Amino acid sequence: MKRTALIGHLTPAHAGQTVTLQGWVNRRRDLGGLIFLELRDRSGVVQVQVEPDSAAFAEADRLRAEYVAEIEGVYQQRPESQRKGGAADFEVIAVRVKVLNTAKTPPFELEKGGDVAEDIRLKYRYLDLRRADMQRNLFLRSKAVTAVTEFLDAEGFIQVETPMLTKSTPEGARDFLVPSRLNPGEFYALPQSPQLFKQLLMIAGFDRYYQLARCFRDEDLRADRQPDFTQLDMELSFVEQDDVLELQERLMAHVFRRALGVELTLPFPRLSYQEAMDRYGSDKPDLRFGSAFEDVTDLFQGGDFKAFADAQTVKVIAAPELTRKQIDELERVAKQNGARGLAWLKRDGDAFTGGISKFVTAQTAELLARTGVPEGGTLLFAAGEWKKAVSALGAVRLALRDLFDLAAGGPQFHVSWVVDFPQLEFDEDSQTWTYMHHPFTAPHPDDLKLFGTPQQGEIRAQAYDLVLNGFEVGGGSIRIHDPEVQTQMFAAIGFTEEQAREKFGFFMDALAHGTPPHGGIAWGFDRLIMVMSGAQSIREVIAFPKNNRGADLMALAPSPVDTAQLGDLGLKLDDAAPEA
Amino acid sequence: MKRTALIGHLTPAHAGQTVTLQGWVNRRRDLGGLIFLELRDRSGVVQVQVEPDSAAFAEADRLRAEYVAEIEGVYQQRPESQRKGGAADFEVIAVRVKVLNTAKTPPFELEKGGDVAEDIRLKYRYLDLRRADMQRNLFLRSKAVTAVTEFLDAEGFIQVETPMLTKSTPEGARDFLVPSRLNPGEFYALPQSPQLFKQLLMIAGFDRYYQLARCFRDEDLRADRQPDFTQLDMELSFVEQDDVLELQERLMAHVFRRALGVELTLPFPRLSYQEAMDRYGSDKPDLRFGSAFEDVTDLFQGGDFKAFADAQTVKVIAAPELTRKQIDELERVAKQNGARGLAWLKRDGDAFTGGISKFVTAQTAELLARTGVPEGGTLLFAAGEWKKAVSALGAVRLALRDLFDLAAGGPQFHVSWVVDFPQLEFDEDSQTWTYMHHPFTAPHPDDLKLFGTPQQGEIRAQAYDLVLNGFEVGGGSIRIHDPEVQTQMFAAIGFTEEQAREKFGFFMDALAHGTPPHGGIAWGFDRLIMVMSGAQSIREVIAFPKNNRGADLMALAPSPVDTAQLGDLGLKLDDAAPEA
Repeated sequence: MKRTALIGHLTPAHAGQTVTLQGWVNRRRDLGGLIFLELRDRSGVVQVQVEPDSAAFAEADRLRAEYVAEIEGVYQQRPESQRKGGAADFEVIAVRVKVLNTAKTPPFELEKGGDVAEDIRLKYRYLDLRRADMQRNLFLRSKAVTAVTEFLDAEGFIQVETPMLTKSTPEGARDFLVPSRLNPGEFYALPQSPQLFKQLLMIAGFDRYYQLARCFRDEDLRADRQPDFTQLDMELSFVEQDDVLELQERLMAHVFRRALGVELTLPFPRLSYQEAMDRYGSDKPDLRFGSAFEDVTDLFQGGDFKAFADAQTVKVIAAPELTRKQIDELERVAKQNGARGLAWLKRDGDAFTGGISKFVTAQTAELLARTGVPEGGTLLFAAGEWKKAVSALGAVRLALRDLFDLAAGGPQFHVSWVVDFPQLEFDEDSQTWTYMHHPFTAPHPDDLKLFGTPQQGEIRAQAYDLVLNGFEVGGGSIRIHDPEVQTQMFAAIGFTEEQAREKFGFFMDALAHGTPPHGGIAWGFDRLIMVMSGAQSIREVIAFPKNNRGADLMALAPSPVDTAQLGDLGLKLDDAAPEA
Repeated sequence: MKRTALIGHLTPAHAGQTVTLQGWVNRRRDLGGLIFLELRDRSGVVQVQVEPDSAAFAEADRLRAEYVAEIEGVYQQRPESQRKGGAADFEVIAVRVKVLNTAKTPPFELEKGGDVAEDIRLKYRYLDLRRADMQRNLFLRSKAVTAVTEFLDAEGFIQVETPMLTKSTPEGARDFLVPSRLNPGEFYALPQSPQLFKQLLMIAGFDRYYQLARCFRDEDLRADRQPDFTQLDMELSFVEQDDVLELQERLMAHVFRRALGVELTLPFPRLSYQEAMDRYGSDKPDLRFGSAFEDVTDLFQGGDFKAFADAQTVKVIAAPELTRKQIDELERVAKQNGARGLAWLKRDGDAFTGGISKFVTAQTAELLARTGVPEGGTLLFAAGEWKKAVSALGAVRLALRDLFDLAAGGPQFHVSWVVDFPQLEFDEDSQTWTYMHHPFTAPHPDDLKLFGTPQQGEIRAQAYDLVLNGFEVGGGSIRIHDPEVQTQMFAAIGFTEEQAREKFGFFMDALAHGTPPHGGIAWGFDRLIMVMSGAQSIREVIAFPKNNRGADLMALAPSPVDTAQLGDLGLKLDDAAPEA
């Protein structure tokens, strides 16, 4: 028998019709001699009633939770007293039931899945994925992919697959290696991104490329990372930064519209890196709420309050009224993020009390004016070296968000750009200059003259990050297309010509063979879908994720292999290796 | 400056307008003081004329082959004497030229790319990809992907990404291994296919799934294989074989229509495995032409011609008139494919001459009637054990196709199904039964009773292959959803319960938790695009392929790695390993 429709596609127009449905027994109740089943498929749930004198009864009586069943019956409105409006007002009176498959008792109740230990959910992922939350997340993801394809095809992009077995790329994280049997003792690397290949596609003249690219980074899986993740990867030729940004905005709007039915406001606000750090203490600020910092360095410069007088930067954020316990907690956050402490003041009329109030009497009027802190509210200060001070206060700002649910009053989704990143960073540990994005990012043409000077830290990159609700969901840049500038860039980060050639020789060759101006971006697709779906972890938007030890608890990977298999690869286990 | 349009999008409506174009210098000629450039982008080529007194001249004079240039000029019809109809009747009279980038002299002439050694093409792939052939192949591929997405989305399929770092799957080829740093001494396998995961998605209730899946097999790269290839992978729940086939036919028709503008005739013919082998000596017969075999076993059975009298099977194919040299060559093909020889006859009026003619006088009339061989034509015979005889004659049939271009008279594309494959094969070497597709393929329900009997070789699988122009471009099956049948299947191939559990334990568990009836298919996407584009190798439809040593000649992968990096993985090189 063929099914008439998916359960969720039944409409009042089906009322009175005999329908055939196929799905899983969500629940079974026996009441007054009748069997009441909830039949579930991916689209919905419907109640099925089996009467004791029905020919369907004997077979229906075999059904247990999660059995697979085919049910033929009459789709009809429930008695008037039981109607509440909507699809649940309809039920099926079974005339034929067929058990399509039995099922063991599930190891956890599907409806409580969200509260079950994640290890259990991952071990029985095929059951966990039956839950409405997971179904919704993965359907959202699929719709977003379709929306991307639809939009970029219409914009003239070509979809190209780049190699999965390749050579180390310049992202700087650790590669996953794949031993080559045909070339024993040699290894492929799994791609950290298609960065060089997409630039090569521009050199090859494809003009506009995209790919949903599987990428790999062998990192310690702190936080919310997966060894294997997905990027929406794009590159365009003959473009400048504004062209890339404008297209991304329309694409993002299309994805939200098609996958969520949400309209985004275009254009997205643009903040410079300097501004984002200065005002929000983050290069991926959550702009669903305000709470920007005020700069009050000038108020204390050379003054009596020594902790602030010598500081490169003094920043303040206005918070609601805080208890001492809350202030202590926020100070802990500030210290964890590099601050020496968290000075505070409480507004009391036209004065401040508590904290550092006795040191700021001269600045009171100005602090009230600049921060607009309301009666009873708290001012929190970070002082010190600029980047440390703003970063610590940025962490405090997010802690305040979580404490007072500050984002709740804002838009559900806020997308913005952070632009004008520094091209180079000075690494204090190694006392060397390094790239902030990657070595192929184009510097701002006006700043080229700073290469090789003590001011090269001020060179602005033509790089941009896409920020959604405080998450970096995309990042890209205009690339260097002039071999001369590429040489300057390598020199600036201390690569000799030999080193550059050893690492990127083939790419340097390609660059000299007629490279168009080009630039692109990659979206962290897992994270984007996580934020869109309201999930708390990317594991909630990936069908079969690894746990934080890199293990697949269902398939039991990774696992040991035969010595012979290693021998074929020219490898053996290193007995001296530390135990995991 | 922004470009006005891609070159190929200029139309007669642009005539007289000033346009801005960006692209590569395809060719430069200097004639009568003028510079003639061909400017190329991904969409086309246009002639640009730079007059000696033009302000553009000095910059244009810098241009060499493969330089990147921006050209502003007036798009206009060429002088009437030079018109031939079409886009080439138009040219651009330059008013401004800007060199966007220089280019080294290419190491090979792009227009001769097809004739250049493949190693050179692969080393400079970014130049090779500029060639019209490669651009066309990759655009065709991209269009086919879009067509797939479009169609399957409309049919209610969800696109899901399955893991790339996983555990060995049951395809039986060798896995690529990925050492785990977090679990030293343990390994992931790169997926040979998403087979188990897509079945798990059906168990999870997703109902209809697809994915363009990157797959990996560590095989010796004879013939036209890549270590890393792409499958269009699909699975459907609550379906029978006819449902899958019917959907595939509509999908294939949609892909041909959207990507090539070609209309396929539906439904595709279906041949049983038995019939395909019997008539064409192949389970992927090229049906663009006929030349089916006739069975003439009965004509010789127990007769005087000993070579045929005892044979299990005697098959004959009718060929055009052949020279002795051609017959010798075809006999070599037959022998290479397992025949002991290739008997032949030439038609001469109502008789046969040459070859085995003196042994077949009694059969002459019947042979003429059954084969309909024309005057002067040749009959070629294979005799012996059925599978060997038909396979050898199948190879001869393809050799005849190539020799006489037999496929040229047929349709450009011929798609068919081969169905009713055997469930099990007896392996003479190991004297064991093994699966023909994979151990999850469902047997025909009528044949279940044969499991465990001496006739289990006659069990038909609910398996199907999609054949295009003699290439297997897809294969799939209805899967086993009944744990009991799965147990029978494992028993039939000699797996103990322990062995089954060790290999597929988690999947066996899943199967017992409410598995719907389901089935699916995977298309060999590289091969499909190869045939659609008329290319001779899948390397022609992959942007950055490996050569037949598994090497990327451009990026120089695989390559050696640091001992320290191996140490982190708990590995060391095995010095005893043979040199590559």
